[in-house]
Amino acid sequence: MSVKIQVINPNTCIEMTQAIGIAAQQVAGPNVDIIAVSPQQGIASIEGHYDEAIAAIGVLELIQQGKQSNVDGHVIACFGDPALHAAREIAEAPVIGIAESAFHMATLIATKFSIVTTLPRTKIIAEHLLQQYGFAQHCAQIRCIDLPVLSLENDKDFAYTKLLESCREAKAQDGIGAIVLGCGGMAEMAEQVSREINIPVIDGVRAAVKLLEALHGMGLKTSKWGDYDYPNQK
Amino acid sequence: MSVKIQVINPNTCIEMTQAIGIAAQQVAGPNVDIIAVSPQQGIASIEGHYDEAIAAIGVLELIQQGKQSNVDGHVIACFGDPALHAAREIAEAPVIGIAESAFHMATLIATKFSIVTTLPRTKIIAEHLLQQYGFAQHCAQIRCIDLPVLSLENDKDFAYTKLLESCREAKAQDGIGAIVLGCGGMAEMAEQVSREINIPVIDGVRAAVKLLEALHGMGLKTSKWGDYDYPNQK
Amino acid sequence: MSVKIQVINPNTCIEMTQAIGIAAQQVAGPNVDIIAVSPQQGIASIEGHYDEAIAAIGVLELIQQGKQSNVDGHVIACFGDPALHAAREIAEAPVIGIAESAFHMATLIATKFSIVTTLPRTKIIAEHLLQQYGFAQHCAQIRCIDLPVLSLENDKDFAYTKLLESCREAKAQDGIGAIVLGCGGMAEMAEQVSREINIPVIDGVRAAVKLLEALHGMGLKTSKWGDYDYPNQK
Amino acid sequence: MSVKIQVINPNTCIEMTQAIGIAAQQVAGPNVDIIAVSPQQGIASIEGHYDEAIAAIGVLELIQQGKQSNVDGHVIACFGDPALHAAREIAEAPVIGIAESAFHMATLIATKFSIVTTLPRTKIIAEHLLQQYGFAQHCAQIRCIDLPVLSLENDKDFAYTKLLESCREAKAQDGIGAIVLGCGGMAEMAEQVSREINIPVIDGVRAAVKLLEALHGMGLKTSKWGDYDYPNQK
Amino acid sequence: MSVKIQVINPNTCIEMTQAIGIAAQQVAGPNVDIIAVSPQQGIASIEGHYDEAIAAIGVLELIQQGKQSNVDGHVIACFGDPALHAAREIAEAPVIGIAESAFHMATLIATKFSIVTTLPRTKIIAEHLLQQYGFAQHCAQIRCIDLPVLSLENDKDFAYTKLLESCREAKAQDGIGAIVLGCGGMAEMAEQVSREINIPVIDGVRAAVKLLEALHGMGLKTSKWGDYDYPNQK
Amino acid sequence: MSVKIQVINPNTCIEMTQAIGIAAQQVAGPNVDIIAVSPQQGIASIEGHYDEAIAAIGVLELIQQGKQSNVDGHVIACFGDPALHAAREIAEAPVIGIAESAFHMATLIATKFSIVTTLPRTKIIAEHLLQQYGFAQHCAQIRCIDLPVLSLENDKDFAYTKLLESCREAKAQDGIGAIVLGCGGMAEMAEQVSREINIPVIDGVRAAVKLLEALHGMGLKTSKWGDYDYPNQK
Repeated sequence: MSVKIQVINPNTCIEMTQAIGIAAQQVAGPNVDIIAVSPQQGIASIEGHYDEAIAAIGVLELIQQGKQSNVDGHVIACFGDPALHAAREIAEAPVIGIAESAFHMATLIATKFSIVTTLPRTKIIAEHLLQQYGFAQHCAQIRCIDLPVLSLENDKDFAYTKLLESCREAKAQDGIGAIVLGCGGMAEMAEQVSREINIPVIDGVRAAVKLLEALHGMGLKTSKWGDYDYPNQK
Repeated sequence: MSVKIQVINPNTCIEMTQAIGIAAQQVAGPNVDIIAVSPQQGIASIEGHYDEAIAAIGVLELIQQGKQSNVDGHVIACFGDPALHAAREIAEAPVIGIAESAFHMATLIATKFSIVTTLPRTKIIAEHLLQQYGFAQHCAQIRCIDLPVLSLENDKDFAYTKLLESCREAKAQDGIGAIVLGCGGMAEMAEQVSREINIPVIDGVRAAVKLLEALHGMGLKTSKWGDYDYPNQK
Repeated sequence: MSVKIQVINPNTCIEMTQAIGIAAQQVAGPNVDIIAVSPQQGIASIEGHYDEAIAAIGVLELIQQGKQSNVDGHVIACFGDPALHAAREIAEAPVIGIAESAFHMATLIATKFSIVTTLPRTKIIAEHLLQQYGFAQHCAQIRCIDLPVLSLENDKDFAYTKLLESCREAKAQDGIGAIVLGCGGMAEMAEQVSREINIPVIDGVRAAVKLLEALHGMGLKTSKWGDYDYPNQK
Repeated sequence: MSVKIQVINPNTCIEMTQAIGIAAQQVAGPNVDIIAVSPQQGIASIEGHYDEAIAAIGVLELIQQGKQSNVDGHVIACFGDPALHAAREIAEAPVIGIAESAFHMATLIATKFSIVTTLPRTKIIAEHLLQQYGFAQHCAQIRCIDLPVLSLENDKDFAYTKLLESCREAKAQDGIGAIVLGCGGMAEMAEQVSREINIPVIDGVRAAVKLLEALHGMGLKTSKWGDYDYPNQK
Repeated sequence: MSVKIQVINPNTCIEMTQAIGIAAQQVAGPNVDIIAVSPQQGIASIEGHYDEAIAAIGVLELIQQGKQSNVDGHVIACFGDPALHAAREIAEAPVIGIAESAFHMATLIATKFSIVTTLPRTKIIAEHLLQQYGFAQHCAQIRCIDLPVLSLENDKDFAYTKLLESCREAKAQDGIGAIVLGCGGMAEMAEQVSREINIPVIDGVRAAVKLLEALHGMGLKTSKWGDYDYPNQK
Repeated sequence: MSVKIQVINPNTCIEMTQAIGIAAQQVAGPNVDIIAVSPQQGIASIEGHYDEAIAAIGVLELIQQGKQSNVDGHVIACFGDPALHAAREIAEAPVIGIAESAFHMATLIATKFSIVTTLPRTKIIAEHLLQQYGFAQHCAQIRCIDLPVLSLENDKDFAYTKLLESCREAKAQDGIGAIVLGCGGMAEMAEQVSREINIPVIDGVRAAVKLLEALHGMGLKTSKWGDYDYPNQK
């Protein structure tokens, strides 16, 4: 019987949803179906707290849909892990954000990592996550290529050049062992960057898929005892 | 010229909106107008992350309305400070949550405080806020009366009894100097509890109003340099 | 009935006491009387731990005097918040230091701030306060203009130039949303710097006055339950 | 082509090695071979820092052997993760300890977990790991059944009874969503405990196997850039 | 040539000065002279922040006197380490507080310790020191015998009974390896308690003397580069 | 009666053992015998986690020998403090590592220190120790001279030049009051560096000897209550 993993792109950029779906599929196990989805209405790219708050509704609706389709796990494929705790309250299957996924994986193969993300204003979101999850001491630096998220689709070559440059600097200067890509839209660039500069480069989308498979293989679901119990009826 | 402060109750319980408005008005300065509002659609009470995510949309719409009415400050009157960072991105005037307000005030008059809140599942939200804001070391304990938020309106006497009991225990056992009420719906009970057990009891709604007046008096608004800049155009 | 706020300049520089008093008065509410005082004997400027310890006696005597005059709040207008906890033990009214005031206000309008202070040796005092109060994670940088405190009175133009330069660098390089001035003697320069470089610049003197008004408006005084109880009789 | 995972039991108790191997095999993917090994000489059980230091040599020799056999990943199946950093220096494939594995998995399905381990003196080892890895804030409590490690083999029924009792208390009192078993020797009891008390119970052996599969599926190996580079030639 | 160590009792209780001097002498090396002093005017016992601030002046005057007498080290023999940083600014020789001394020593022989002190209101002082020095994670518990400082002189037997009881509880319940006595006035009771309950009990007075001897033996004095430079001339 | 202190050089470089022994003897008290030893088999220098794990066995055997010779204290003279906790479990006398020793001493004379060590890959070991011991906030910077440990013996002049340069930079740039040398092999250079750049430079070997004398003088040994109890019999 196959395992179904729902990969939610919280923004409405369909090209990005497709690219994320492809990245997810590349690492998915033989019996794993990837269902890449994005909200019909919402926000074209997520680059701040407001964008996240708006996107949260779409994420939660998609989680509900996934649940009705009996998926075995949900990925929230935006680096701020928007609506993660809320999604876990309504889900039965495990729910994983791509920021946390990348952090977990990075700390299994390196003592420290740097994040390379898009706009400087997204750094505060990553910082809050690092602190809340407990990974702050493992993150040496958060670097920005200073391009909007959508340039990763609209101006790929330039964005790739900037990303490569920033990763190279991170490798040379930060005292790290791995790089975490700080945007779902960078998923398709991970392997090439890693090959070019010869350091592990971690894409949270792939990481999340593999972590969901891992949880599934252990029979672990979102705990319904305590904080992630279903929302209270009013 | 008068100062206008918008007090947003993020849930749809109108009785609570009124009670919050009254509490706000009680402490408002002579030239301050309190505009207490709540979303037309949304969620009846906020008792978890899902509730918060859903309520965020209403909060942000009300922030936009307040901005168009040229209010001088916005209060988010729910103890999880839902959508606070997002609201600051779209607002010009300062925006303050009642959890942070209460924490700030408590640390000005006591070395440590305890929080008394409603349901155990809301504790994790308070814990995340305490950590993110930096007040974790000042909070001795988070206590719960183990009643849903709406019981504060529907079953006031019983809720008050439980609250009083919990505050009494906090005073006796926690090594604190002040108590923070962990729900907007407790605003109207603050003074009576304080009088009965003779320890400062801080209601975040009142605290937020006074902090907004303070910021206004200094000419300080939400900083538009950096993280709280207006959301990016796509 | 008027509200009386005692603003204590812990050093003996009368020009500074006057300037601080003027800054306080500028933001004080319509019914608020500012009583700016400084010790008759003591130390001309506070630039280290020894200076602070010596100044503490004067501060505490002035707190006692203020208490006898029934003031409604006390400001300790030196950025190290000298004798703050001690003052709270003997006071009934609230007591606020200008360092903590500025930190509280800054975190209500920005995710991070930098401090611009006088001599490098005062940095350690600010660092200890940031840690004790819980604001360390919100402070991006402590910058120094490398001038003694009294140069703020004796060589105002040069000091202002240096301050402006340092604030400009903080704005450009530190990833912040607000600047905190790290010396009571800088109070009169706050507005001009803010206007010139267009970022919120927070003077703790003004912040403390407004926070005291806020506490007063809520009926909150220094808690006499627990750590801030009156000193024990021997 | 099959994936080979070496599961190292750092102590010399062969019954435990077998039990750990069985637990690992239960969750291993269809093309995954589990190679459960233990040192020929060493220490019968690991219950403190001295035991860990002695066991480290055997672990590192087995890592070298596994490397020569081209395994795709190494598990260090003792809850103190002994010699983890050292093993990563000499390995090419990823190396994972069962403590870290369990912590990672637990935080993906619950906001907080408790650890139930054997002897009180092993608590300090877990505490140091929680701090170094960054999971301290997610661990509500470390509980002990107060039995030596080998009683898990020699007196299974009694040990199980004690474990069940301790997990039940953790569920009821600690405000958690999941339980982490704090000893490799408890691996075979995980499922039964989880079924009886209806809360996710995480065995680090299984978790480590699945995390290694996840890393393998992403093509991630121990980073050889920086801290985990091969030991220096003298 | 002899080594001179000045032991400053910051309160004016001469019996306590003598007892502290005797404790210091008991551990002093063969060529070490102990000079036990206390201020002529000041405060009879130190049980809060106000007492500390008042006592600071006397401590600093005695430091100056000690410096003029060319002592080789100064002990501040009150558990709040009052005026420690200030004293280091004016001293050339090393200056050590008895709280820090006890913490340092305790962590060299045990992973964790508990403090047993006098009144509950002094706990906050110890907590601030633990945090500032970095020992917070090593302190399992702060326990109080709930007696004023002077009862250690005036009602020795009762105080001893309470102290013993509290230490016994700490040993049994706190998961510690050593006990730190939280008041200079307890110095003379350290050995007897340790003998009776068979756990290391650390008196900061003795610890400070030995640490000063250690620094002296290495030729280390208070660093005059940076934060502890002499106070600035005005 | 003389006091015997065993100084263990965990690597097999005899020149280094001798140099360490000489440094120890220089500061030892008149009645203190220094017994400098190193393992017969082991590793020539310790520059990473693997080296540490291998060296641990030799350290523990030497601790056992020292115990049989009734030494009064053991120094582990390698900056990673390898096998420290394990050694304390088997020892009766106190055991001290040179990293912790240097940290303790540095914080008694300066608010902050920098470490100057050998290879960049050893930084992570120092960082983990700083965090575990609680000194992270006191360490401003870890600097590397980027030379292998054995160059301190084989190419002394060059190594000294690099060390001096790095210490000079630390003094000028790091805002510190003292420097900690990050390798046992630097022991003999400490005094000369300190004299040349006029800032306290702390060698952990000397510091450890003096701390052991201090503990001995107080009658304190490794606590056998709790975590450092003798290893359990199997």
